[in-house]
Amino acid sequence: MRIDILTVVPELLESPFQHSIIKRGRDKGLVEIVVHNIRDFSEDKHRKVDDYAFSGGAGMVMTIQPIESAINFLKAQREYDAVIYTSPDGIQLNQKESNKLSLLNNIIIICGHYKGIDQRIREHLVTMEISIGDYVLTGGELAAAVIVDSVVRLIPGVLSDETSALTDSFQDNLLSPPVYTRPADYNGWKVPEILLSGNDKLINEWQEKLAYERTKKLRPDLLKNE
Amino acid sequence: MRIDILTVVPELLESPFQHSIIKRGRDKGLVEIVVHNIRDFSEDKHRKVDDYAFSGGAGMVMTIQPIESAINFLKAQREYDAVIYTSPDGIQLNQKESNKLSLLNNIIIICGHYKGIDQRIREHLVTMEISIGDYVLTGGELAAAVIVDSVVRLIPGVLSDETSALTDSFQDNLLSPPVYTRPADYNGWKVPEILLSGNDKLINEWQEKLAYERTKKLRPDLLKNE
Repeated sequence: MRIDILTVVPELLESPFQHSIIKRGRDKGLVEIVVHNIRDFSEDKHRKVDDYAFSGGAGMVMTIQPIESAINFLKAQREYDAVIYTSPDGIQLNQKESNKLSLLNNIIIICGHYKGIDQRIREHLVTMEISIGDYVLTGGELAAAVIVDSVVRLIPGVLSDETSALTDSFQDNLLSPPVYTRPADYNGWKVPEILLSGNDKLINEWQEKLAYERTKKLRPDLLKNE
Repeated sequence: MRIDILTVVPELLESPFQHSIIKRGRDKGLVEIVVHNIRDFSEDKHRKVDDYAFSGGAGMVMTIQPIESAINFLKAQREYDAVIYTSPDGIQLNQKESNKLSLLNNIIIICGHYKGIDQRIREHLVTMEISIGDYVLTGGELAAAVIVDSVVRLIPGVLSDETSALTDSFQDNLLSPPVYTRPADYNGWKVPEILLSGNDKLINEWQEKLAYERTKKLRPDLLKNE
């Protein structure tokens, strides 16, 4: 899988893609992540990428030309399955969407900044808008990082133990059961007795029951979705 | 406002807090963000911070001691309004929650990694669990970065123009209207005529109408929430 990210603050994304699971996916050659500075594609002599909003008011708007040029530059090299714009208006990212995205070959993610990108980019160039949640961020960069992280870890071979992703929250529309590790008694805070029983079958049943109960209590909507 | 972040991969958070709006908030002294390596608080000679899950299965669990020691170290220095754990089980972050969080003085955010933190930490030390969305991430680091970004930009004085945050999506339970900038005609892609009219009153009405219509079409649930 190849992910191209277009941003005006590429330096913001330096560290999240250099560590942990994403680094492992890159090192194994399972995913290629290329961050592009939109300014590099500006035809303006000052590398300008934004301008005042026609409607007036606070906040600058990202102009069409640099973003269109960047997309054309990439599309001339390979086919893309999706040109994604991170926006509060988009479809909500969830585990099912991440699963779907992890099956694509090449995607472009445009990170909006300032007051957003010119609407005409969204109408003519963007094929998919994704929101990571109902809150406003300074730019789309962290949203892009979240999308990349949630997707890359689902690519087979990226996680060292594939069952680790399969037992994550949401994969079966359930929250995870609580987890415990040693010591069994930490200054009087004890783990549930059953975990010390050594009976795998009972422990599994207990975990499934708790996962279901927690979901019913905390997120009953997840149980209704399927 | 002071935000202390506890993580086992502090390097992952290096760049997101060094740029853009968050940097501005820090430079102006409006927010202090301190990232702590949980390993520094481990009493284990190999600085171990995780151990096998009692339930068996894939994935390690973060142990109590280093996290409790880190929290105690911080609490000895100042009072904290909240000890937050980023988890898919938590309350969903939204703009209203971000607004509330931006009013707090000192908060701690614990980033889970691996299979999560020992449940006893959640029961005895954590005061608030927050989810940024229904998807699984490699760790809580990006979730913490998202929370910090959404909150810091709401602290008065952080954004250069305060109206810029007030007109963001969600602040009035509406999505933003579309934005446009020059040129008015980009290779045949034209901005809506009304934006060229120069009539501020008409433009404002048009924007409000579009914000409402977009919300009704794309996110009718937002209109029902209030």
